[in-house]
Amino acid sequence: MSASTSSPPPLDEYLHAFAVPGRLSTLFNPQSLAIVGGSEKSFWAQNFFRNLERQGFTGTVVPVHPSRTSVFGRTCYASLRDLPNPVDLAYVLAPTEAVPQVLSDAEAGSVGNVVVVAAGFSEIGEHGANLQAGIVEQACRGGIAMLGPNCPGFLNIPGSVSAYGQEIPEGLKAGGVAVLLQSGALTSGVLKFSLAHGIGLSTVVCMGNEAVVRSADVLAHLVADPSTRAIAMFLEEIRDGRSFLRLAEQAIAAGKAVIVLKVGRTLAGQRSALAHTGALAGDAAVTEAALRQVGVVMVRSLEEMLLTAALLASGPRLTGRRMGVVTSSGGSCDIIADRASDEGLELPPLSEETATKIRDYLPSFATVQNPLDTAAVDTMQTTGTAASPMDVVAEIVSQDPNFDFILYMGFNMVPFSEPSASEAATVAARIDLFGETIKKSPVPILGMSQTCMDAGPFARQLYDSNDILLLGGMEFGLAAIGHAVRWDQARTELLSTSPGPETPGVSVASIGAQELTCGILSEAAGRQLLEHAGVPMVPAELVQSADDAVTAAEWLGYPAVLKICSAQLPHKSDVGGVALNLRDAGEVRAVFERMQTISQKVPEAVIDGVLVSPMRPSGTELFVGLSRDASFGPTLALGLGGVWIEALKDVAIRVLPVDRNQIVAMLRSLKGRTVLEGGRGGDPVDLEAVADVVWRIATVGASLGSRLESLEVNPLWCQGATVEAMDVLVEINPISN
Amino acid sequence: MSASTSSPPPLDEYLHAFAVPGRLSTLFNPQSLAIVGGSEKSFWAQNFFRNLERQGFTGTVVPVHPSRTSVFGRTCYASLRDLPNPVDLAYVLAPTEAVPQVLSDAEAGSVGNVVVVAAGFSEIGEHGANLQAGIVEQACRGGIAMLGPNCPGFLNIPGSVSAYGQEIPEGLKAGGVAVLLQSGALTSGVLKFSLAHGIGLSTVVCMGNEAVVRSADVLAHLVADPSTRAIAMFLEEIRDGRSFLRLAEQAIAAGKAVIVLKVGRTLAGQRSALAHTGALAGDAAVTEAALRQVGVVMVRSLEEMLLTAALLASGPRLTGRRMGVVTSSGGSCDIIADRASDEGLELPPLSEETATKIRDYLPSFATVQNPLDTAAVDTMQTTGTAASPMDVVAEIVSQDPNFDFILYMGFNMVPFSEPSASEAATVAARIDLFGETIKKSPVPILGMSQTCMDAGPFARQLYDSNDILLLGGMEFGLAAIGHAVRWDQARTELLSTSPGPETPGVSVASIGAQELTCGILSEAAGRQLLEHAGVPMVPAELVQSADDAVTAAEWLGYPAVLKICSAQLPHKSDVGGVALNLRDAGEVRAVFERMQTISQKVPEAVIDGVLVSPMRPSGTELFVGLSRDASFGPTLALGLGGVWIEALKDVAIRVLPVDRNQIVAMLRSLKGRTVLEGGRGGDPVDLEAVADVVWRIATVGASLGSRLESLEVNPLWCQGATVEAMDVLVEINPISN
Repeated sequence: MSASTSSPPPLDEYLHAFAVPGRLSTLFNPQSLAIVGGSEKSFWAQNFFRNLERQGFTGTVVPVHPSRTSVFGRTCYASLRDLPNPVDLAYVLAPTEAVPQVLSDAEAGSVGNVVVVAAGFSEIGEHGANLQAGIVEQACRGGIAMLGPNCPGFLNIPGSVSAYGQEIPEGLKAGGVAVLLQSGALTSGVLKFSLAHGIGLSTVVCMGNEAVVRSADVLAHLVADPSTRAIAMFLEEIRDGRSFLRLAEQAIAAGKAVIVLKVGRTLAGQRSALAHTGALAGDAAVTEAALRQVGVVMVRSLEEMLLTAALLASGPRLTGRRMGVVTSSGGSCDIIADRASDEGLELPPLSEETATKIRDYLPSFATVQNPLDTAAVDTMQTTGTAASPMDVVAEIVSQDPNFDFILYMGFNMVPFSEPSASEAATVAARIDLFGETIKKSPVPILGMSQTCMDAGPFARQLYDSNDILLLGGMEFGLAAIGHAVRWDQARTELLSTSPGPETPGVSVASIGAQELTCGILSEAAGRQLLEHAGVPMVPAELVQSADDAVTAAEWLGYPAVLKICSAQLPHKSDVGGVALNLRDAGEVRAVFERMQTISQKVPEAVIDGVLVSPMRPSGTELFVGLSRDASFGPTLALGLGGVWIEALKDVAIRVLPVDRNQIVAMLRSLKGRTVLEGGRGGDPVDLEAVADVVWRIATVGASLGSRLESLEVNPLWCQGATVEAMDVLVEINPISN
Repeated sequence: MSASTSSPPPLDEYLHAFAVPGRLSTLFNPQSLAIVGGSEKSFWAQNFFRNLERQGFTGTVVPVHPSRTSVFGRTCYASLRDLPNPVDLAYVLAPTEAVPQVLSDAEAGSVGNVVVVAAGFSEIGEHGANLQAGIVEQACRGGIAMLGPNCPGFLNIPGSVSAYGQEIPEGLKAGGVAVLLQSGALTSGVLKFSLAHGIGLSTVVCMGNEAVVRSADVLAHLVADPSTRAIAMFLEEIRDGRSFLRLAEQAIAAGKAVIVLKVGRTLAGQRSALAHTGALAGDAAVTEAALRQVGVVMVRSLEEMLLTAALLASGPRLTGRRMGVVTSSGGSCDIIADRASDEGLELPPLSEETATKIRDYLPSFATVQNPLDTAAVDTMQTTGTAASPMDVVAEIVSQDPNFDFILYMGFNMVPFSEPSASEAATVAARIDLFGETIKKSPVPILGMSQTCMDAGPFARQLYDSNDILLLGGMEFGLAAIGHAVRWDQARTELLSTSPGPETPGVSVASIGAQELTCGILSEAAGRQLLEHAGVPMVPAELVQSADDAVTAAEWLGYPAVLKICSAQLPHKSDVGGVALNLRDAGEVRAVFERMQTISQKVPEAVIDGVLVSPMRPSGTELFVGLSRDASFGPTLALGLGGVWIEALKDVAIRVLPVDRNQIVAMLRSLKGRTVLEGGRGGDPVDLEAVADVVWRIATVGASLGSRLESLEVNPLWCQGATVEAMDVLVEINPISN
């Protein structure tokens, strides 16, 4: 929905205002509202009023309309400047062309926050973009926090307020899940699903065109918002990736999970052929890697997003992977075992003590194991209390020290539909009792249904009153549990890691980046850059004659490699500019002479000479690439060379900065890691040694700052602890202002 | 739940009876029922009667109880032999120890079908297995089709009958989806989900222990059942894989999709180290490959299983991948684009004609493209008829020849809850009108919701009366569409393929398999087997002296390879029994002498001599393995050698028979196919030539019949069109009876 606009100069400084904690609190928690431009006939105005009424909003609501004196039975004012008292927020239903006037009125009437619903701005092209630039300037001048345009608004459930013109279902539950959507029309699905699954919501915001208030600003607000415990985001675009990463780090520190559904993941953004990193993995892979490295949970569906957020907002942390499972179905146990394995969860055996204790409550034909099928035939049979045998078993299992948390699948006993009064009382007594068990349990007990189903009003009320979250179905539910466990682990690691030395070891000055020519460097110039940073390079002599080439080859040792050296020939092997495995002076001389003919074929190439290097024996070859992502900045990509990286997209990515430990982790995350570890009888590669060299290469990239377009070492040759850059290709950007 | 039992001799022949079409029709469509052993206090008996009543069962139901004269107000008989008329089916609630007596009574009373609910048979170990063997023998003798034991029963929705002791929700819809479950306790989830999503069911069967009636028998029944259009199966175990594959082929021919959720997919069944195929990929991978090759749809969740089956049972075939998408949400379009790409679906542009026509119905700010966001702000606005602009747009798009089918997401306008009478009428008029559009459409129009949600009673009734299937959510819904499109394509291919020559080119007699020793063959014996089938082998001379080794090496050409030859040393490189790249007579002699010491280190090994071969230059190396899967029989596994197969589990698998085209397809399905195709400057491998050699190797395996334990060629060396087996390892089973 959103599209980029050309920002007028004051905007960027103005926008810093939103980074001030609390600046958006009045926007999302207004005590007085105006609605501008909606008549009784407008569905949007009808919904706006009905929503506030359903929420029990207790503040004032004032209609504003240029040609009415009364709307919906309320006194109507001609403009925002005519209000008796300024309101906290104006909800603007005025048509596109009237928006500038409304903003003038808002400034004059001291209205600090507006939601602009009208479409027809930057999303429709140049004309709209100009209109939008105009209202942005107005908002900046007037100090107005504008949400939209092209935005249906927001809901604040715990605050009992909304500025939202579509229908809000009745019965939404207040809770810790905030939702930010870069698509207004998904809100309906989000609200319905949350209602059906009893997911408690804090603030739900549609972003619209993000002309003034941006996703990052709202994220900052939600990280600080005391009602919010987890933040779910549907994102089409991340504009300022670096700010986003900083905010995600703040969220981690505050113990709030950020869950992102980022679309566009399959549209590999093809960049220039030189920026190999982007071309190989796609911008989507960079976004995913960048968000993951700061602990953001990446999901692929709305259901997974909402259930994961609900679990992460729901209270007890899942501090380990050891899951105890209590179900009444062997088939569910099978499915859970498969899904647990997908998610990296463990299913340790029951302790002997637990096994002995629970046997009394199980039929003789039940197999006592984890995951447990209680084979509860008559599920409501008594145990002397209202508890079913299954619930007693779950309580015993929850005390087993073998488990970090319990997955309980006993709620499918709750009847389909409104039960009879006596049935309702029995079920309610059982759920209430089990609610107590959950509260007393030494580890979290998580409820789950077999499939993703609405709980229905009867059951939902029971779960709500006992603070029970029922995860919807094994497929999404185990995805949510996997995310929650990994999030907790990532959080612990992120908070405990004291970063290693990650500052560039060389400065731009020392590598002379200021003086670098713009464009592709010759290999000799690229080598110089890396040598400055202590990157071991394969020895090379730049020669101008066949005699010098032979002398160099003899000095460096046969077999030799010859490569033509020219900034204009980055793909030198395509023009016959690379010769490997030359065994004697005759071969070197012949190749040198042949390479002289290249300048005739490519007359525009300035040839610096020929580089002579020794040929290295076979070893493991890595690809190391640095490039600038448009949103996240300098990014490191690492992979095994050749088919691995091309056929399998086997690349590890990190946004800089990076330290040596993180580089080792990147190497270990590759699918082809067995090659590095010496599988199939090869010698293992010394990962620490590799990491040191990669770190030095990354340092060069970081030092280049905004002048880095791309830097590629391919291959980086490794044999045991010996690591050498064999080939380097650097592209430099013009000096930016 | 099920466990294997030792079958008494008559069983296997007896079981053939169930392959007779129609044999199970009375079991699943009985006109008269007896319930044995349930009193008024039993929940199971209560549910049994209530279910039949809810279904409107019109046949007779007779209670049988040894100590009652009346149950549930009906005259009760003491045993099945005392009934005035034989019933079609007895539902047996009697306790475990009473089951043999009930079966005697059934035989005496000419009852041909029983469902045995009691547990405590083969699933609890040896004692239970003996009990089960006894009742199986009784059933066989009595000609009784027994479902169970340890089985809650089945439901036949179109037949308005069930023999099922747990609660069936009210309002289940009759339709074309049959469900077979190897876990009774999943039934509740399956029924609830089907009800919530308006999925029409035919027969739902729980299999229990499969002592007599097995999953394959029920599959055969469902393939022939006129009410059934798609068959969903939850499987823990596939006992007779070959029968299963034949039935799946019959289903394909009948136009009925089989959808399988097979659990145990992550527990790689580790077999003997020699049976490399199984160890590499796991038995789960063999099962998956075997089922896919006959067009079975493999799914991973209950929701995906049921929605896919519903779509495949619902009517129009999806005969192509080109999807037109009409939504009212840009965010949905984004998610759909990503998911479509995952599923291999295409999103071609709208034709110019379509784009022009629909523009009139869209707001000016809408972008006219596929996937289309109609930006339908006021969705119920009029178009002169009851149709909303969105529905008119969908109708126009459905006539665009660019699309094979249309995905329509306009049903989220249907209100959350029971609407007011006037609102209900408006919505109903719109849905009814759109129902007509769907019926008239030249291509299928599929409805989908944003998330996986219950439709609710109001909406469900509208969809049902218009024969509309609403796919539950974009995540599962696009999985279902992807499956349906691929199923149709697979079906077309399977039905059109005239199989190539796949009969073994050599007979067991000609390769002398009768005379083969049991156990591991020496490499010389293994080579002989392959040579018989025309497999090109690297030349090799078996020598007994250093002089002969040198003579052979000189004859075959240096560099040479020496390998010790002994049936007792299958892993010869582990004991120093392989030497590569020997450059002259001195090296050959030295290595030969060293290999003589191996017999001292491994005194139990009988050394046949030393094999001398020429060393081949580097080329592409393949792994070719044949092994016997316990369920599916001889199976071919193919992969690139080395790290590919070990680190990436990059193996293509097919159950035999196989033809050369299928082998080419297997090679092309490998992740590392770029290596074969000559990526990174290597020479491409001639896939036809490789396929011919692999087919010959497979032929040897097939010829060995049940005597094949495993046959492994590793590596199969390929350079262009030259293909040679470099090493062969064969393990032979004893002659079975």
